[in-house]
Amino acid sequence: MTTNRQLRLQARPKGLLAPGDLVLSETQVPELQEGQALAKVKYLSVDPTMRAWMAGDTYLPAVGIGDVMRAGGLAEIVESKHANYKKGDKIVGLTGLQEYVLIEAQSKFPFQKVPSIPFVPETVFLGALGMTGITAYFGMLDVAKPQKGETLVVSAAAGATGSIAGQIGKIHGCRVVGIAGTDEKCKWLTEELGFDAAINYKHSDWKEKLKAATPNGVDINYENVGGEIMEAVLDRMNLHGRVVLCGFISGYTKDVPEKMGLGVMIVKRLKVQGFLVLDYASRFQEAAMELGKWKMMGKLKDRQTIVEGFEKAPDAINMLFTGGNTGKLIVKV
Amino acid sequence: MTTNRQLRLQARPKGLLAPGDLVLSETQVPELQEGQALAKVKYLSVDPTMRAWMAGDTYLPAVGIGDVMRAGGLAEIVESKHANYKKGDKIVGLTGLQEYVLIEAQSKFPFQKVPSIPFVPETVFLGALGMTGITAYFGMLDVAKPQKGETLVVSAAAGATGSIAGQIGKIHGCRVVGIAGTDEKCKWLTEELGFDAAINYKHSDWKEKLKAATPNGVDINYENVGGEIMEAVLDRMNLHGRVVLCGFISGYTKDVPEKMGLGVMIVKRLKVQGFLVLDYASRFQEAAMELGKWKMMGKLKDRQTIVEGFEKAPDAINMLFTGGNTGKLIVKV
Repeated sequence: MTTNRQLRLQARPKGLLAPGDLVLSETQVPELQEGQALAKVKYLSVDPTMRAWMAGDTYLPAVGIGDVMRAGGLAEIVESKHANYKKGDKIVGLTGLQEYVLIEAQSKFPFQKVPSIPFVPETVFLGALGMTGITAYFGMLDVAKPQKGETLVVSAAAGATGSIAGQIGKIHGCRVVGIAGTDEKCKWLTEELGFDAAINYKHSDWKEKLKAATPNGVDINYENVGGEIMEAVLDRMNLHGRVVLCGFISGYTKDVPEKMGLGVMIVKRLKVQGFLVLDYASRFQEAAMELGKWKMMGKLKDRQTIVEGFEKAPDAINMLFTGGNTGKLIVKV
Repeated sequence: MTTNRQLRLQARPKGLLAPGDLVLSETQVPELQEGQALAKVKYLSVDPTMRAWMAGDTYLPAVGIGDVMRAGGLAEIVESKHANYKKGDKIVGLTGLQEYVLIEAQSKFPFQKVPSIPFVPETVFLGALGMTGITAYFGMLDVAKPQKGETLVVSAAAGATGSIAGQIGKIHGCRVVGIAGTDEKCKWLTEELGFDAAINYKHSDWKEKLKAATPNGVDINYENVGGEIMEAVLDRMNLHGRVVLCGFISGYTKDVPEKMGLGVMIVKRLKVQGFLVLDYASRFQEAAMELGKWKMMGKLKDRQTIVEGFEKAPDAINMLFTGGNTGKLIVKV
């Protein structure tokens, strides 16, 4: 009989994980049934999203109390009665925090086989060529769509996803600025990864440095953190900039699970677009014609609240914020 | 000589406008030069954005202290030495809060002539067929892109823009739910404008009512308010929903000018997109191939922080939130 050590979720953490939130337990590996395979976990992926999985339902159901903690990992098949796997195969997928994983015939998240490439450590399939790298790939190329000469700012830039996102920006001809939390990380970003600048947000003057590092403003914010860091970057954004909300590290360890704002925007993949009608000046005529047509057809009704007297204009402005008007508010001079 | 009464910005308001923030002054209308025209203001448009113009720079420079307050209006030409205008013409544009407006030969925001349509009050060109109606038109059709059968929730739904946005949603076959602040407004929305439901956010159970009114969730949020109202709507959003950030009424009267978040998103017309890599599952192979190619070419570098020992996994998770790792964080089992 083989013993399988597992880490089970015993309590939903408050803030950082405390002893007792994840508890070590042992179980025996069961005898394989036809269609199953057994894999020994070699490496486990550690990702910020795991903290969110512990807190409550997100894009996946919350991990249940008492369940083996969900996690990605790289494992090696040690025994197989499964048509797709043979002993020695390396696989990546949701192994969970445990030493052995039982692979069933059917799975909602099937494991992927890992090719063996000379001189490439297999762990790269948990990182740069794995889920975090793939995340950076689609976040940058499908959402941000970087253009040559644009400025990209990446937060948590020395993390698994941020470091790849920034390099994809460089490959596409962007000026790339990273935000990270130690000088050593910043050095790695600029000296090894080719970032144009890197800013340590733990230095008190980091916002001025961000400003200096983005002389032409910011076109793309690849955002992994949220909170004060995101605010500072938003403040530097250019017109029609794009923010890829990839993660919300600053929010995951908050005591109250944050349901709104950035959290819900990621979970629901929302698109929030700031919008100003002045950008459509060349098409105002088109809109007025269409609105007028609808109005004539009786499909569009309007009401006006008219305040009489020029000197009442200041009071009228306040009415907007105290719920005083219905429909269009107008002062008759 | 003709006297022109004007309202000038004397102090930047704190919260709602107080007496003395806008001050009445008188000036004489100057003699017309060649290329100029003089118009008498008949109606002034009162819009939430005016409060933002008083507070600081937005998409337009802040109104200067001592300057005539910026405002839209409808005016009638009373005298003209301008090639485009003759006496009696009605125009709309940025008249300012004053009784007479001098029209220059050149202007960054030229006035538009208003057609005279039988049985249509000219004030409609400040509302449904004016800037607020046109705003709703492009916000709905160009940003939200409503599809038949989708659910639209509009905040400040009884306002000038919200009431038109909701009706455009109905024209395009949406289920439309409005949020407003009085029962009378709600009644107007459902009984006269054809909204499917309207919710008075001043009733304590309004969030439950919002839930009941959106049994299939929310696909589009046409947002004019922000804050708690927006949070409640975001909580009901469906996957891949769209939020049109048109206004931020809950923020305009805050003492500290809110530079970040919704405010900056509107001013800069930002697109913020929540994003999850699972949506790209069918293209993971493509990404891994491309990333692998870049890695082979030396264009993509990665680093791993490897923690040894299965039982260290909980500590490793905390490292993510305390800045402990560079690159991909992995536990070696």
